Amino acid sequence: MSRPKNDTLLRALLREPTEYTPVWLMRQAGRYLPEYRETRKRAGSFLGLCKNPSLACEVTMQPLARFDLDAAILFSDILTIPDAMGLGLYFVEGEGPKFERPLTREWEIRNLSVPDPYAELRYMTDAVTEIRRALDGSVPLIGFVGSPWTLACYMVEGGSSDDYRAVKTLAYTRPDLMHHILDVTARAVTACLNAQIESGAQAVMVFDSWGGTLSDSAWREFSLAYLRKIATGLIREREGQRVPAIVFTKGGGLWLDALADSGFDAVGLDWTMDIGRAREQAGNRVALQGNIDPAVLFATPEVVAAEARKVLDAFGPHPGHVFNLGHGISQHTPPENVVALVDTVHEYSRKANRNT
Amino acid sequence: MSRPKNDTLLRALLREPTEYTPVWLMRQAGRYLPEYRETRKRAGSFLGLCKNPSLACEVTMQPLARFDLDAAILFSDILTIPDAMGLGLYFVEGEGPKFERPLTREWEIRNLSVPDPYAELRYMTDAVTEIRRALDGSVPLIGFVGSPWTLACYMVEGGSSDDYRAVKTLAYTRPDLMHHILDVTARAVTACLNAQIESGAQAVMVFDSWGGTLSDSAWREFSLAYLRKIATGLIREREGQRVPAIVFTKGGGLWLDALADSGFDAVGLDWTMDIGRAREQAGNRVALQGNIDPAVLFATPEVVAAEARKVLDAFGPHPGHVFNLGHGISQHTPPENVVALVDTVHEYSRKANRNT
Repeated sequence: MSRPKNDTLLRALLREPTEYTPVWLMRQAGRYLPEYRETRKRAGSFLGLCKNPSLACEVTMQPLARFDLDAAILFSDILTIPDAMGLGLYFVEGEGPKFERPLTREWEIRNLSVPDPYAELRYMTDAVTEIRRALDGSVPLIGFVGSPWTLACYMVEGGSSDDYRAVKTLAYTRPDLMHHILDVTARAVTACLNAQIESGAQAVMVFDSWGGTLSDSAWREFSLAYLRKIATGLIREREGQRVPAIVFTKGGGLWLDALADSGFDAVGLDWTMDIGRAREQAGNRVALQGNIDPAVLFATPEVVAAEARKVLDAFGPHPGHVFNLGHGISQHTPPENVVALVDTVHEYSRKANRNT
Repeated sequence: MSRPKNDTLLRALLREPTEYTPVWLMRQAGRYLPEYRETRKRAGSFLGLCKNPSLACEVTMQPLARFDLDAAILFSDILTIPDAMGLGLYFVEGEGPKFERPLTREWEIRNLSVPDPYAELRYMTDAVTEIRRALDGSVPLIGFVGSPWTLACYMVEGGSSDDYRAVKTLAYTRPDLMHHILDVTARAVTACLNAQIESGAQAVMVFDSWGGTLSDSAWREFSLAYLRKIATGLIREREGQRVPAIVFTKGGGLWLDALADSGFDAVGLDWTMDIGRAREQAGNRVALQGNIDPAVLFATPEVVAAEARKVLDAFGPHPGHVFNLGHGISQHTPPENVVALVDTVHEYSRKANRNT
């Protein structure tokens, strides 16, 4: 379990100097790749793909064969944890994720318990082991989970929502029950991240995807508090190497200060915040990851390259930048634009480094 | 056209002292009210309701009969302007707004022109006149439009979107055409707001509802620039009275400084920003409007009252606060919770004023 040959990502996440800015893309193994769609067809379903370690490994490796990426990220879904908690995850084509047994009654909430990641989520730890073997020390593997608030949104709503009526009603009228869900879920995701680390993940990320739907004070109470608990409970060193941890609150630009102090090594930014101002504000507290608008990838390779340079220029010649999208890559992205993005980030940042 | 008997809203928008914090609600005339659903049924359709001045007046007045609100807001839809520009607005039940002739080709964009608000939008100016008559000097009437970027999203996408693929692709690959759409649309909405003011609107608001989907630099280029143009072109005084103008960028908390300097009298805030910090940041530049999470209204009257007091406490004992939701009221809101909200805002702020 030594450092990978290309450890640029790990160094950038720890704000150590690098020769160029490393880059990976949220949801880089996904539907925009024809080879992914092929494997998914063989798996029979999205969930079948998540639960089959060798197919999960196959799709994890696919983008690395095409693009000069600086990291792999475990192929999985944030909702596998509530599934392992007994809620019964399923997907309806065109409607997104659903739970057979959402949390609608107090006794269901009281009965929640932390699953054993090596039992109920064995397919996930097995996938991590298999991917590490396939990577063969080339680039680091990132593990991930959803934030407790984000998972609770799905667990209480029973699926996606556009107004979060059920989960916010619960949070405002029965904060005791809400905190119980969040507490159990925080312990579950921490155990799961630690199992990913023990199985070989060399960096981890927490997706607070729906944190940005909360008011300032509600976010601090129902999301930030549990992000901090996760940071406290994480394994931070493995075989002599620091395991960097990233936190990403979509729509969390206003909360950068709180996130920079939440105990993580790096903060992911969506595309609405100028990354130069974010760097000034975060100072030396954390590395930053981001933050080009994924919609830029709908344009031409020339536009993609120009917009990538803008983000690099905004960040400036400082250590601690991991280039990424501000959100997951769209299924409608032409793969040739990803080539333009990755190559521009490498070439332009390498040149900028030489000049300083 | 003298000042209304209750001019608390107008004074608060101009940061003049008031006896209490005025309150109105975005989309206060709407589906959560059974009497609205009744009138809409009589109108035959949502668009029929918008285009019938006497029915539009009827639904505008409905929430004022139930709640002690400090303003009326014209019942209309932001997409009536692109409709008047010839795009053919229609609504499909459960799918939201659509255009028969979205902007997909260059010649369609080049052919855009500014409609005459007194001709193609006569139903809107007539509604303003009729509502003013019905209000009979009780509370002020607010007029409104959508921001050029927000309208362009619908005009280019042809309806709602979750990734803004068409409009962002146009913005990134053909900024010249994008700016042409935005320029014509900015002139159209300015003309429309001015016609609303000439017809009797005593304050106006621009809804930059989809500004928050843009990156920092793209927002400055494709939205803020046109918000500033609107502010410059507005009638600001009518019969000796200042006509305050409000700008609201959903998800625009990070851009508060730019918005406070954009030429408007007040800035609307969604619920993700702490309004106390916003007040400190905006200083004496503008009044602030907002910003309780509309989801709080799904809870109990007691919770609604407690959360309303939190927002008032956060703003503190300063002039220049108009209480509102951070976004439009949901159709699932129990009307009794609106009573709790409005009454709490009045009583608590009146008491706080007495104590200082």
